[in-house]
Amino acid sequence: MFKFDVLKNSKYSRARLGKITTPHGDVLTPAFIFCGTKANIKGVTIDHVKNAGTQIMLSNTYHLMLQPGSELVRDAGGLHKFTGWSGPMFTDSGGFQVFSLGHGGVQSEIKGAQQFQGKKTLLKITEDGAFFKSYIDGRIVELTPEISTKVQIDLGADIIVCFDECTPYHVNKLYTSNSMEKSKRWGLRCLDTLNQYGNGQQALLAVIQGGVYSDLRAESAQFANENDFHGFAIGGSLGCTKSQMYQIVDMTSEMLDRSKYVHLLGIGGIEDIFNGVRCGIDTFDCVAPTRIARHGSAIVKRKYLTEKTARYLNLNNAIYKNDHNPIDHDCDCYTCRNFTRSYVHHLFKAKEILGGTLVSIHNMRTMNRLFEDIRKALDVDDLNSAQKEWCEY
Amino acid sequence: MFKFDVLKNSKYSRARLGKITTPHGDVLTPAFIFCGTKANIKGVTIDHVKNAGTQIMLSNTYHLMLQPGSELVRDAGGLHKFTGWSGPMFTDSGGFQVFSLGHGGVQSEIKGAQQFQGKKTLLKITEDGAFFKSYIDGRIVELTPEISTKVQIDLGADIIVCFDECTPYHVNKLYTSNSMEKSKRWGLRCLDTLNQYGNGQQALLAVIQGGVYSDLRAESAQFANENDFHGFAIGGSLGCTKSQMYQIVDMTSEMLDRSKYVHLLGIGGIEDIFNGVRCGIDTFDCVAPTRIARHGSAIVKRKYLTEKTARYLNLNNAIYKNDHNPIDHDCDCYTCRNFTRSYVHHLFKAKEILGGTLVSIHNMRTMNRLFEDIRKALDVDDLNSAQKEWCEY
Repeated sequence: MFKFDVLKNSKYSRARLGKITTPHGDVLTPAFIFCGTKANIKGVTIDHVKNAGTQIMLSNTYHLMLQPGSELVRDAGGLHKFTGWSGPMFTDSGGFQVFSLGHGGVQSEIKGAQQFQGKKTLLKITEDGAFFKSYIDGRIVELTPEISTKVQIDLGADIIVCFDECTPYHVNKLYTSNSMEKSKRWGLRCLDTLNQYGNGQQALLAVIQGGVYSDLRAESAQFANENDFHGFAIGGSLGCTKSQMYQIVDMTSEMLDRSKYVHLLGIGGIEDIFNGVRCGIDTFDCVAPTRIARHGSAIVKRKYLTEKTARYLNLNNAIYKNDHNPIDHDCDCYTCRNFTRSYVHHLFKAKEILGGTLVSIHNMRTMNRLFEDIRKALDVDDLNSAQKEWCEY
Repeated sequence: MFKFDVLKNSKYSRARLGKITTPHGDVLTPAFIFCGTKANIKGVTIDHVKNAGTQIMLSNTYHLMLQPGSELVRDAGGLHKFTGWSGPMFTDSGGFQVFSLGHGGVQSEIKGAQQFQGKKTLLKITEDGAFFKSYIDGRIVELTPEISTKVQIDLGADIIVCFDECTPYHVNKLYTSNSMEKSKRWGLRCLDTLNQYGNGQQALLAVIQGGVYSDLRAESAQFANENDFHGFAIGGSLGCTKSQMYQIVDMTSEMLDRSKYVHLLGIGGIEDIFNGVRCGIDTFDCVAPTRIARHGSAIVKRKYLTEKTARYLNLNNAIYKNDHNPIDHDCDCYTCRNFTRSYVHHLFKAKEILGGTLVSIHNMRTMNRLFEDIRKALDVDDLNSAQKEWCEY
């Protein structure tokens, strides 16, 4: 059964050490959740995912309901058996992607871009749910709170998320308010569906909406606190600047029942993580660590970057051609123990997909090392030193 | 130091059990050599290569001399350190690719197609060597027996091959004869270069040429027998039908000093392997097992194929969508122990590169299981039973 325990609170912020207990094992928090969108981490075998110290991974309801379909995954014994990942598993609701693809790229929307981009596939939003066009075959698909929850029951993850309308940034307060109210009603329908059809083993997170408006965030948080959710996921628009994001995450987190678990949806930058932890966030997810890896960008502590403005070590760079050092001398990952920058550079130049695999393994281990350091730092209540170690150039 | 021992001879054919000793470990023969063209097996981490029971892998001189360059690999400590593969390693001479790309696709040439295909990059063949255009940047590159051998010394594989002219099928006997004579002269230059510049640790194989002509094969074999090579690689055109191939391999192998090791270049079909073993071939190499894997074709014993005309189990096939069995119940590979046909089918449908990785691992393990079975069969001198088990529908 799902359980969340706070093991230690910081004296300086809402940062805390915690433990999530699930039917598939524990997650020590703060923790990073890796995105295995289509029931796999792209190019990485599950033994390497595990050996990188990964505690929990995520798959996407939207992608899996379209391909291979949730009934197939259920018949396979659920996502754990299907993917070979025996540890804790998280699924989102599909809402983010439906409204993302619908509005033409919610990533930029959430983060404040003013324009729609890409092809719009969202056909209709009603009180009942949403209709969208499948990116696989163009057929029209309905997604409602009931369907999203049933799909997530079939998928069988340990932590699942309420279907909500993911409100874009550019809409006005009235739209945001109406949308948030609708997400509240949808949240109750998800809870009812889980109670009716679930096996009692899955934890359901309420999504906190309300955009950049503190009164709407408060209303959304109050609703989540008053109902029988297992935890919270902070979603919706977080504004268009870093400082606005920190402010919204901080304000929203403060409004939540502190005995429950709090996830921050889609955020994975190292500074953002330190700030999130201070706001009381317990878990984070983001596609970036493995996505940038496939393009040759390795995450390292800032002090190991040769270019002081760079965010990552870009292994495509010719300076690594004859560099027979590991990506990161500090790192104990499979890649750093066995291969050099020169070898990984060669793989990228030769367009060998193994390059992306090796950097993905490194970035996963690095994110896990980051969170190990954060947990160690919280144990002695000195997050500043850890942040300095990871973030200072 | 390199050594080859015959452990047991069959009473029924020239088939034999043997052991190759190299500075990086032993290879029990008959054995399969996996192609890691550009210093990696595409999409497979080296731990999975090893865990599949792989004894020896091959990299290609042609590709590596162009990218990243042999000096770089030498400075990295050689191919073993560069790739993380600590076991026995084989490099070819580059000749096959130079003449292959030169004539516009030697694969079809070798196997008897009548037409040139593809873009021709071979510029000139002289007594000294060959000039060709680099497929990377178009620059003109010279490859001579001396350069090929020095590149292979830099790369540092345990078994290396003489630079020869890889004669196409369509040429006449005079061309084949002149080419074979030239390859003999080139072979001596390779031997001299290795003796002058090598560290005494690398074994050099003479390439047996002569096309489909028994008298030319005999002359090439006699030359190879009379000089101080460590073993032989049967190359050149093997005709245009299976039966012609078997005949040429059989005839050529019979001409060779039986105390030395014999490799058959570029052949990897299961029947071809059984026939090759009967002819006295000790090792085989072929890109097919991992190349077809990336397209979803899994190698299994014929009796496990549902379509009686199929050669492989094609995991793209919709019949596997809901098939929750492993690819092969007999197989002990990482993929078969952890994943179902349904999951692998899903990965291919979702265009996830992990699908190719998982089937590559399966195919490598399967080729290694095939050779384990062949060696067991030779130990009791009953190759027929093993062939029946693997090849009968």
